[in-house]
Amino acid sequence: MSESKLDVSLWPSVNQLTNPLVKHLIDNAKVLRLLVEKLPSGATVIDAGIKAEGGLEAGRLIAEICMGGLGHVNLHSSSTFPHWSWTLSVHSNNPVLSCLGSQYAGWSLAHEKFFSLGSGPGRALAGREELYKELGYKDSADAAVLVLESEKAPPQEVVEKVARDTGVKAENLTFILTPTRSLAGTVQIVSRVLEVALHKIHTLHFPLEHVVDGMASAPVPPPAPDFLIGMGRTNDAILFGGHAHLFVKGSDEAAAKLAQELPSSASRDYGRPFAEVFKAVNMDFYKIDPMLFSPAAVTVTAVESGKSFTGGKLDAALLDQSFGYSA
Amino acid sequence: MSESKLDVSLWPSVNQLTNPLVKHLIDNAKVLRLLVEKLPSGATVIDAGIKAEGGLEAGRLIAEICMGGLGHVNLHSSSTFPHWSWTLSVHSNNPVLSCLGSQYAGWSLAHEKFFSLGSGPGRALAGREELYKELGYKDSADAAVLVLESEKAPPQEVVEKVARDTGVKAENLTFILTPTRSLAGTVQIVSRVLEVALHKIHTLHFPLEHVVDGMASAPVPPPAPDFLIGMGRTNDAILFGGHAHLFVKGSDEAAAKLAQELPSSASRDYGRPFAEVFKAVNMDFYKIDPMLFSPAAVTVTAVESGKSFTGGKLDAALLDQSFGYSA
Amino acid sequence: MSESKLDVSLWPSVNQLTNPLVKHLIDNAKVLRLLVEKLPSGATVIDAGIKAEGGLEAGRLIAEICMGGLGHVNLHSSSTFPHWSWTLSVHSNNPVLSCLGSQYAGWSLAHEKFFSLGSGPGRALAGREELYKELGYKDSADAAVLVLESEKAPPQEVVEKVARDTGVKAENLTFILTPTRSLAGTVQIVSRVLEVALHKIHTLHFPLEHVVDGMASAPVPPPAPDFLIGMGRTNDAILFGGHAHLFVKGSDEAAAKLAQELPSSASRDYGRPFAEVFKAVNMDFYKIDPMLFSPAAVTVTAVESGKSFTGGKLDAALLDQSFGYSA
Repeated sequence: MSESKLDVSLWPSVNQLTNPLVKHLIDNAKVLRLLVEKLPSGATVIDAGIKAEGGLEAGRLIAEICMGGLGHVNLHSSSTFPHWSWTLSVHSNNPVLSCLGSQYAGWSLAHEKFFSLGSGPGRALAGREELYKELGYKDSADAAVLVLESEKAPPQEVVEKVARDTGVKAENLTFILTPTRSLAGTVQIVSRVLEVALHKIHTLHFPLEHVVDGMASAPVPPPAPDFLIGMGRTNDAILFGGHAHLFVKGSDEAAAKLAQELPSSASRDYGRPFAEVFKAVNMDFYKIDPMLFSPAAVTVTAVESGKSFTGGKLDAALLDQSFGYSA
Repeated sequence: MSESKLDVSLWPSVNQLTNPLVKHLIDNAKVLRLLVEKLPSGATVIDAGIKAEGGLEAGRLIAEICMGGLGHVNLHSSSTFPHWSWTLSVHSNNPVLSCLGSQYAGWSLAHEKFFSLGSGPGRALAGREELYKELGYKDSADAAVLVLESEKAPPQEVVEKVARDTGVKAENLTFILTPTRSLAGTVQIVSRVLEVALHKIHTLHFPLEHVVDGMASAPVPPPAPDFLIGMGRTNDAILFGGHAHLFVKGSDEAAAKLAQELPSSASRDYGRPFAEVFKAVNMDFYKIDPMLFSPAAVTVTAVESGKSFTGGKLDAALLDQSFGYSA
Repeated sequence: MSESKLDVSLWPSVNQLTNPLVKHLIDNAKVLRLLVEKLPSGATVIDAGIKAEGGLEAGRLIAEICMGGLGHVNLHSSSTFPHWSWTLSVHSNNPVLSCLGSQYAGWSLAHEKFFSLGSGPGRALAGREELYKELGYKDSADAAVLVLESEKAPPQEVVEKVARDTGVKAENLTFILTPTRSLAGTVQIVSRVLEVALHKIHTLHFPLEHVVDGMASAPVPPPAPDFLIGMGRTNDAILFGGHAHLFVKGSDEAAAKLAQELPSSASRDYGRPFAEVFKAVNMDFYKIDPMLFSPAAVTVTAVESGKSFTGGKLDAALLDQSFGYSA
């Protein structure tokens, strides 16, 4: 039995919603500078930045797919950060389903030397993560898509595992590959700015059924070929440059507390570029304070009282340091 | 006979344009967290924030419907207001038709205790308002949609009146309900920032046939459950945070005069949150200076000379006061 | 034989991509305030600002057509320039093809008193410009569209020449007319902000095959009825207000050099409104330093090292002077 208080009976199928978007990506592969390949298993692989050029727009569309067809990612200029004026503005028809039920990179897929965290709608068919028990949501669809921040196509064994766990035939599976160093990867990862807020909300045990809506923005970092720096910048775009506005039910006290605890600066590991933090723990992700992963600045509006609470702040200097700006 | 100098023979049907958008809303009700219901009369009611969750994106789409399928509403972050970074940017293919002929909440619908101001394309079929004589525009279509800032579905008598006045069968009528306190309502109302400018232009007797184009923006306020505060904030988002750019024909003098008279600050009632103004007149709308309802800052470009004139200014402090910001 | 190192075998057909967009424009002529006419030759002419009203949205759609169906033009407010808050944010799925292979106004079309520089996809069918030899790209399609910044429809002789050079029957040719003084023209021209950067990149002999992606923004200027001032403002929107971010392959030295040489301020003719520069050379375009035509501020990211280099700067004062702002 689900422990969720979320009314998931009203939730749509994120895989059914994204199937036409995946088809659009495949049909427009040339236009989007993607390479589409069939694996021996019949599964489709879309290369968005390994041999393929990919690019900003490919990343934007992949981000909307990753959000289960419920996300809206807008790429535009802004004057928030003088040296990094390009901004991703993200909102969703249903943030909890879209961000946690689809976009979060939570499905660990490994075989021998291959390792990747699967994100996107396919996760909701497999339901292999603890998170799905809490959400109480299980999707049903004939086709599935997963986004992998990977330099390599998944091996046969991983495809078979995904087919088994999702109940979808290998020939109806699509894997979209967006390396962290690629432009499409950069855009797709930073478009997680709202998801990162939702995930920390969940980590803080704030009741998900109280989250009504949200929107968030973050600057587009320059991609980096070094995996560590690339991962650092995409994280820092959110940790130092992310700005989220959440609309929640419940008491003012709970909203005020959330606004205090939610920003990245509430973490003991806040204060230097993520690549440094990661090196300092010898690349052991699990030694990093989970409270670090969040937007820099947040506004939380308690919709029942109409009061708004703020926490954290944008940090242009740390952003410049991470993104490699020198005057 | 029409007194209009507008060449309405070139205007499209706002109801025919919006029918596919309304269908999209109904087909995607689950995805947009809307509830769709058939009334006994056969009319369709779309709940966007009473029992339904609705949300920002639902409000954005409803705003585009309200603009007669001629409007473009963009939700994005901006650094104009430090505490309220989420912004609605609005423009239209045809501002006079879209804003006055469709979006303006001008059709008074009342029966016993039910009262609502109807806005949206359906008004242009009924043509019950003085405004339509001035525009000289009358729409023709088999189906119609109205947007109501209401907590309740319209009673049978109101549905029958709308069917009679529009000449559309009840079963082809759709009512979209967006309470002022809801997120969808908040977005839908603030998306009127260009319409409010157009309406004051009309109140100032500036010739509508001289308005060529326009665009306007306003911040998204936090919704408030109290109707008075909610109405106050959505108004103040425009009165203190709205910025409009109009392109007009005619003399430089007329454009310069418009730039002086158009901003909200040109009104004697300007200077404090709208909820206070409203309370001070004992909630009697007709005692408020009609000149108050307008964007805070305007630019008027006289397209025949290429000169631009500005008036008013954005007021972040009054915005903070209205929206309930405390540092 | 082509000298291009660009892998044009992967490039889509810009004319095939835009045909549905041109059809959309024609089908929605009333909605977009366009006039569509058949010439005696059977060619279609779309008037977007001569007798037709046109407008901002028409200009935006025409800009996306001009970019060969590979461009994304976003119209939104921003606080970058206090007096000119409306901004065009532009990116493309494939900047080199979209901007140089389609959008650049490079095809000289003249007959007796008629003169216009053709831009848009049709150029890529004709391949009459030196540039196409360098790109090594030749399009193939049954229908073609050209955008002309013209006050007059092309004479029969020009239509025949275009039919001959593109290999497309006159009845399958569409000419979109956007006078410089019109709103649609203004938007369509300023949407060239990324193209102008790409063209100067090419003029500087930076290898085009090293350009991976880019995005650029510029403010919307007030249109001017005087051709000279209109041309001045649309140029200055880019020269003083344009901001481009390019992602390039190759050495850091090459990227740093590009960031220094690319901005408009690197030109000897930089420093006063374009209309003055143009008058000073007696309207002889070829006496103006070609290095002037470029965005005001640029960021160049070398994707192989992840380093970013900047050059130039936005100039709000010169923008105000050009656009005719007086406090």
